[in-house]
Amino acid sequence: MPKKPLSRRDRPAKPPLSRQAVVKAALSILKKDGLKKVTMRRIAAALDTGPASLYVYVSETQDLHAQILDALLAGLPAPRPGRHWRADLARVAEAFFAVLMRYPEIARMTMSTQATGPNTMRLIDTVIGLLQSGGADGRTAAWGVDLLLTYVIATAVEHAGRPRSDAPQLNDLRQKLSTLDPSTHPHLAKLGGELLAGDSRDRFRWGLDALVNGVLSTGRP
Amino acid sequence: MPKKPLSRRDRPAKPPLSRQAVVKAALSILKKDGLKKVTMRRIAAALDTGPASLYVYVSETQDLHAQILDALLAGLPAPRPGRHWRADLARVAEAFFAVLMRYPEIARMTMSTQATGPNTMRLIDTVIGLLQSGGADGRTAAWGVDLLLTYVIATAVEHAGRPRSDAPQLNDLRQKLSTLDPSTHPHLAKLGGELLAGDSRDRFRWGLDALVNGVLSTGRP
Repeated sequence: MPKKPLSRRDRPAKPPLSRQAVVKAALSILKKDGLKKVTMRRIAAALDTGPASLYVYVSETQDLHAQILDALLAGLPAPRPGRHWRADLARVAEAFFAVLMRYPEIARMTMSTQATGPNTMRLIDTVIGLLQSGGADGRTAAWGVDLLLTYVIATAVEHAGRPRSDAPQLNDLRQKLSTLDPSTHPHLAKLGGELLAGDSRDRFRWGLDALVNGVLSTGRP
Repeated sequence: MPKKPLSRRDRPAKPPLSRQAVVKAALSILKKDGLKKVTMRRIAAALDTGPASLYVYVSETQDLHAQILDALLAGLPAPRPGRHWRADLARVAEAFFAVLMRYPEIARMTMSTQATGPNTMRLIDTVIGLLQSGGADGRTAAWGVDLLLTYVIATAVEHAGRPRSDAPQLNDLRQKLSTLDPSTHPHLAKLGGELLAGDSRDRFRWGLDALVNGVLSTGRP
């Protein structure tokens, strides 16, 4: 990541450029016109400068997206004091999931980029704390948070990447499952219908519960 | 997906075109020159035809990748008879992981495409059977397989998407973690080092164990 440079622009009419100013302008364009319109050119125009001046503050699209994601995570719920750790974990995970579902491109980027912004750090800190409230030791919680956040991100990418109506794709799979030969696919021939059963929110919650139970019962080697 | 059309080409010198022939040619180019060279043009040349003739058999790049993945899964290990279900599950998951790590583009595609080829079906069937051997009821195993395969795919995408040496990114995170204020990030300030600790294979195996334990202990609602 680039270092925070000092702006040389000192005319009072224009606010000085900064990383924060760039991300703030990006967020405002994002909210108004969607992620596709968040280009260096549009941000530069909003800040009354040229695109080339921005690269000192944001190194590339991926960096910009990482910073947008971090800004979007500012609104995640904080854990409540007391013994609500499992419900709080679900609330935080669902809020994170909702942010990612709104911005599929950012969700995909999150798969391969290690974000380090302050709100991302707060999210990781919160989840580690909640896992420890649930009984995990610190070292296990430190690996568990990665497992949980990867699950949320992967589920969002999976859903967000699908066309709005995935009925044809699902129907194709459903048909395939219903015609499988029990001699070659003994389990699927019997349980194929169960593979696609259930509401996606119930599945998400069940997966989260299973993961949390797994982390709590599997101490780190 | 397109239906299997009959080829109208009947000159004996050229083998008839088919879905299988297209995928076989794609695999052979893949092994020789990498995924980037697997284009409709190259496949067409290998089959002594024009690219337009291929679209009857393979509808788009995504479809081609799904079929290549399915062909690559032909070599996954089969479960051994007996009580080795957990070790067998790990062997299958690691073999699937290795295939995805070799072809990052295919791994990314797998995130949002529901593959339905015969080897993919066999993989799903195998994992459901192994989870049942471990004690999961059928309905839970049918959701559990999705959780496990998503974990394998997401971990592969996460690793494969990184630059060959991710040291600068990791160093950035390491530095961030070491300078966090305990008053705002109480857990991370204490456990930050543990977040990045461990060998990636150990982490993969631990995550797999945690997931399996979670599925086995969390009945589907």
